[in-house]
Amino acid sequence: MIQHTVAFRLIHPRGSEAEADFLAAGRRVLASIPGVEDFALSEQVGKKSPLTWHFSMLFADEATYAAYNDHPDHLHFVESRWLPEVAEFQEWDLVEVL
Amino acid sequence: MIQHTVAFRLIHPRGSEAEADFLAAGRRVLASIPGVEDFALSEQVGKKSPLTWHFSMLFADEATYAAYNDHPDHLHFVESRWLPEVAEFQEWDLVEVL
Repeated sequence: MIQHTVAFRLIHPRGSEAEADFLAAGRRVLASIPGVEDFALSEQVGKKSPLTWHFSMLFADEATYAAYNDHPDHLHFVESRWLPEVAEFQEWDLVEVL
Repeated sequence: MIQHTVAFRLIHPRGSEAEADFLAAGRRVLASIPGVEDFALSEQVGKKSPLTWHFSMLFADEATYAAYNDHPDHLHFVESRWLPEVAEFQEWDLVEVL
């Protein structure tokens, strides 16, 4: 399994309707893409990063992750919502060492 | 629950004995501290970050997390291993939005 994670900060004020709309859209759109497992939205509450939100999802393998990246719903979300509304972000992809 | 995560890059070469020793020590010491749940070591395989390893652990609440931070075994690990052997790192603390 590969856990794809991204922490981000929005251009919208904290607690705004625009923020809530972005988060709901992200969850709705991304969690529905084939191959996405265990989608989670979290608040990044640590003081050592300016990033405030976090998406996490699991993929069975690299091919499933690649298909997600190329899926039209993902590409449309990135273009229509992510690029205009995300101020900064950082991605980590994790493979657990058992 | 609070998920404490830290991604990091070591001063040691990839695949070295020193790297393996650090990772084993981190898992052994940190996972044994009271209050730490679901400790996980992962490789950060994404190309969009220079950080190569990742520790994750869960705490029941802020007080348990604070007790971990102040625990002598944690403080000793930070001083004796983390500070001298970690080249760079970033921490995220996550609270899932259900």
